[in-house]
Amino acid sequence: MMYKILDKINSPKDLKNLKEEEIFLLAKEIRKFLIKNISKSGGHLASNLGVVELTLALHSVFDTKKDKIVFDVGHQSYVHKILTGRREKFGTIRQYEGLSGFPKRNESEHDCFETGHSSTSISAALGMAFAGDIKGDSNEIIALIGDGALTGGLALEGLNHLGSSDANLLVVLNDNEMSICENVGGLSDYLCNIRINTVYRKLSKHMIDLVSSVPIVGVKASQTAVKIKDGLKHIVMPGALFDEMGVKYFGPIDGHDYKTLVRALEELKKIKGPKLLHVITKKGKGYKFAEEDPSSYHGVGKFEIDKGVMKVKSENYSQTVGETLEDIFNDDTECLAITAAMANGTGLENLKIKYPKRVIDVGIAEGHATTLAAGIASTGTKAYFAVYSTFLQRGFDEIIHDVALQNLPVTLLIDRAGLVGEDGETHHGMFDLSYLNLIPNLTIFAPKDKSELRRIIKQTHSLKTPVAIRYPRGNDLDIESSKEDDIFKWETLKKGTKIAILATGKMVHNALKASRELETEYNIRCEVVNSRIIKPLDIQTLEDIARDFTHIFTLEDNSIAGGFGQIVLSELNKLNFSGKAVNIALPDSFIEHGSVDILYDKYGLSSNKIKMKVLDTIGKTNLFEEIS
Amino acid sequence: MMYKILDKINSPKDLKNLKEEEIFLLAKEIRKFLIKNISKSGGHLASNLGVVELTLALHSVFDTKKDKIVFDVGHQSYVHKILTGRREKFGTIRQYEGLSGFPKRNESEHDCFETGHSSTSISAALGMAFAGDIKGDSNEIIALIGDGALTGGLALEGLNHLGSSDANLLVVLNDNEMSICENVGGLSDYLCNIRINTVYRKLSKHMIDLVSSVPIVGVKASQTAVKIKDGLKHIVMPGALFDEMGVKYFGPIDGHDYKTLVRALEELKKIKGPKLLHVITKKGKGYKFAEEDPSSYHGVGKFEIDKGVMKVKSENYSQTVGETLEDIFNDDTECLAITAAMANGTGLENLKIKYPKRVIDVGIAEGHATTLAAGIASTGTKAYFAVYSTFLQRGFDEIIHDVALQNLPVTLLIDRAGLVGEDGETHHGMFDLSYLNLIPNLTIFAPKDKSELRRIIKQTHSLKTPVAIRYPRGNDLDIESSKEDDIFKWETLKKGTKIAILATGKMVHNALKASRELETEYNIRCEVVNSRIIKPLDIQTLEDIARDFTHIFTLEDNSIAGGFGQIVLSELNKLNFSGKAVNIALPDSFIEHGSVDILYDKYGLSSNKIKMKVLDTIGKTNLFEEIS
Repeated sequence: MMYKILDKINSPKDLKNLKEEEIFLLAKEIRKFLIKNISKSGGHLASNLGVVELTLALHSVFDTKKDKIVFDVGHQSYVHKILTGRREKFGTIRQYEGLSGFPKRNESEHDCFETGHSSTSISAALGMAFAGDIKGDSNEIIALIGDGALTGGLALEGLNHLGSSDANLLVVLNDNEMSICENVGGLSDYLCNIRINTVYRKLSKHMIDLVSSVPIVGVKASQTAVKIKDGLKHIVMPGALFDEMGVKYFGPIDGHDYKTLVRALEELKKIKGPKLLHVITKKGKGYKFAEEDPSSYHGVGKFEIDKGVMKVKSENYSQTVGETLEDIFNDDTECLAITAAMANGTGLENLKIKYPKRVIDVGIAEGHATTLAAGIASTGTKAYFAVYSTFLQRGFDEIIHDVALQNLPVTLLIDRAGLVGEDGETHHGMFDLSYLNLIPNLTIFAPKDKSELRRIIKQTHSLKTPVAIRYPRGNDLDIESSKEDDIFKWETLKKGTKIAILATGKMVHNALKASRELETEYNIRCEVVNSRIIKPLDIQTLEDIARDFTHIFTLEDNSIAGGFGQIVLSELNKLNFSGKAVNIALPDSFIEHGSVDILYDKYGLSSNKIKMKVLDTIGKTNLFEEIS
Repeated sequence: MMYKILDKINSPKDLKNLKEEEIFLLAKEIRKFLIKNISKSGGHLASNLGVVELTLALHSVFDTKKDKIVFDVGHQSYVHKILTGRREKFGTIRQYEGLSGFPKRNESEHDCFETGHSSTSISAALGMAFAGDIKGDSNEIIALIGDGALTGGLALEGLNHLGSSDANLLVVLNDNEMSICENVGGLSDYLCNIRINTVYRKLSKHMIDLVSSVPIVGVKASQTAVKIKDGLKHIVMPGALFDEMGVKYFGPIDGHDYKTLVRALEELKKIKGPKLLHVITKKGKGYKFAEEDPSSYHGVGKFEIDKGVMKVKSENYSQTVGETLEDIFNDDTECLAITAAMANGTGLENLKIKYPKRVIDVGIAEGHATTLAAGIASTGTKAYFAVYSTFLQRGFDEIIHDVALQNLPVTLLIDRAGLVGEDGETHHGMFDLSYLNLIPNLTIFAPKDKSELRRIIKQTHSLKTPVAIRYPRGNDLDIESSKEDDIFKWETLKKGTKIAILATGKMVHNALKASRELETEYNIRCEVVNSRIIKPLDIQTLEDIARDFTHIFTLEDNSIAGGFGQIVLSELNKLNFSGKAVNIALPDSFIEHGSVDILYDKYGLSSNKIKMKVLDTIGKTNLFEEIS
């Protein structure tokens, strides 16, 4: 056996009999296990290393077969997975058909709620508490939330509601001193003040002692303890902000001190009503490289344990965005850019260094970021909001109501559009073309490659209306289109007869490949059109295509429902197109995790599947003969 | 002249020369003017009566030709409109082609930002501050926000960001002790505590005195005043919550004391950085009926001034929802219902009285409401969320990520779907079919009338998956369909040949009327199909229709973009339908305010316009001859 203690832990109840020194060893083994596995599979490392003792303590005190722990965001649920019977499958994490990198109800009865996006835990847990109340359930409910996620509007709405309820709900605030980047906001500053003030720290340790030292005779005693705390509140002050909102604050305590954690959790079990335990943890704890640079170890690919993550300077889409904005910022000295805690991920890192006042990080707050952009743009200043496709869903109403309705010059730079791969169903950017298309006044682009992305960003700089530009995660080769043609028109990349493929964004690449193979293997010449502008459609080109071709295929890495294909169909219907139109798109269902290539092939977007779809549709031999 | 002072006020600068007693008289005249006009036109009464002195003070201290006041929600901007050159047009408010009931940039240079949905003002104002900072503008920026709107996640995100910024931004918190209904949440309780504590009140009045009494020698003096306040903060405590978040708190002060308001605003002008002035106002102030029952005077129709608003027991859709839920609640003793500060509007008022613990009002927090519902449903308990279509846009990501992804038994009861009329472009529920259709796992209904609504709510109670049911504002006659048929199938209401109209929801009524007229006037027999289920489509019936009819019309009071019609086209395309399909829907643009009937006719949804569209499409005489 490789791990003396860990190999014997097959469910949380196996923790019950461990001695304190065994727990200590177990924590070490879990860290070793995490580092070893994630170095092979990639995944969320730093956050999981930070919650080892906290997760052990939660499982020691609570029984997740009935008690419910909601893991906010959920990328910090690896230790929980390891302890709840998924240790042996852990090597498959984030791989196709393997364990998910997030809590999944179908993986384990210990996963009570699925997460992925930030700031949902308090709301979900409060719902469980209300339902439990009606049903007379007495199980414990815990929302485990990071300090970064706490500043999302959804979490604040949840906290506000919690504070005026009498729900028996424990919020465990995992304060790891940073979200993905540095935190932003008054609340964050506030938590920081608590952390750095050692007087507070000593006093609040004393608070836990106070709570514990009261003779325990059931609820009443704990209520007394609460009263003592109430009395002291206005003197000691830490957490007054939470107390004022009606959520009793306890802490801060050391999140790597297992014994203190267990003691605090046990005591808090006895205290009725909404309460918050402030736990300080260190991201990356126990792995030198990750401790020193937790941001780089938030989400990692494969790496060598003794060397750490290699910083490869990759030529990805995000970087293109950052560089292009830098060009624009140099010329237009007024425009501003916004990120919601994703300056690195969206490629704005260097821009922020060069123009610190002109790149605004709002923290995890996509709704606010969008309306902030509208506020900026209302003064005539161009505002760029760079954001992941899936997270922009949080700003949906704000795009409609604050940006589009006033027709303001906000440009949404939508990263991670289409399938993202290993992060799976909560993170695929597969709805954006649909939810953006329904918004009036928007101009929507999906450039086929990085050079086109650059050109579209530059050329839309002068537009005084809202623009959305979506592009995929990662790297892609340029398709070497040297033309400086009109970005508001579609571009024919390959001439063909009878059959045309209208492809958007990254899918242009697959369409070209399919088309080349169709020509080589079957002598079928498909026209390939780069449909880089989605809204408004290039009606004139579409008219030409409808007139000249008998088979029109649309291709997109977006849901079929409300996507590019259906918009094209709508126009073809108006044009009385009498040929055959076929939409190739992602199905109207949630797409699991796995490598993008596996998923493309499974869902018909690989060049091979596109080729087969074309052949199937035209009845292969018939049209082959007819065309050849 | 009817109003001695008011008639001379054509722009805010006319306020400058008024003596204090003239302002006092002006406030009285404005109230008289508001009551008189709104009694004829309908509109938001109580909130505007509450902000008369506050608006006068803001316009005395600030110059809205350059200074920017963002009116949160914006229904309290009537006094502002009256003072900024729109007094004479005020009689047209909320009418077609008349003044909007909300701020509009194209109405006046004094309207810097358009609002309608709640909680946007701090974010928008902060954007203006950042833009101004880069451009070197020195104008003042004010977010005027109510206590109800402050608890929305967007406002809390904005407040949090504001607190860590150094933006010169004044938040004026108009605390009128209620939002549309009673407020919910820890923050609300907190504000209430400040209000009711007279010691605080006196102390904070003293605070304003302190700030004022410091000899004014520019910024420095005010900074001293701030320091004095800082020193006292931990003793006096009011507003500590805001202070802790980094937004300097001042108040509370009496929002009907013009002189104090002006003095406070003048002093706050000198204080740099983020600051909040807590102003207590009385909704409905100056009109007895409205003061006594501000909730009923929030939004009113026409009324007689000396009698007040007549409470008419109307048979509207919302009421049907409330009654149906009551039946369900009587049988299923576990299910829960949620409202976001709209128990009255959504018809849950009586249900809440009968089952106070089972109807949860979360305040203005649609995102939280949705995830709360998911939390409830994750325990196997059915959760109903009754919400206006336009406000559900705020829960878009939460429907996808928390409800649909886990396929949980949450039913969205979507009120005010389609055009709502006088509230206009920010309030029409014209996007829901589009933004819901793109979400996997949802079942979507649009019942044709109230009895069908009742039946659909009842029959979907046993579904273990997410359901969305959309229905219009107001009253409608039942279409007397007595059949207890399968709600998952479409229903043929009128037989016809060649031409079929597939209509959804309330539009079924217009389709029937058009069809009857086509028969009477032109002897054209249109089939009318009640397409009550939108997702999944009733493919079997659609197949029959595609086979048997040559002309298929779809009809919906939703945007053409991504709506019912485009979904039908997509299916017809798969079915190789070779006839003519035509979508009748709202255009892909924002729709102005005006009566629903005027708007239906303008945008082609009136029975007359439907009739004309059919006639146009079939080439009138030809098909007429062919069919007859």
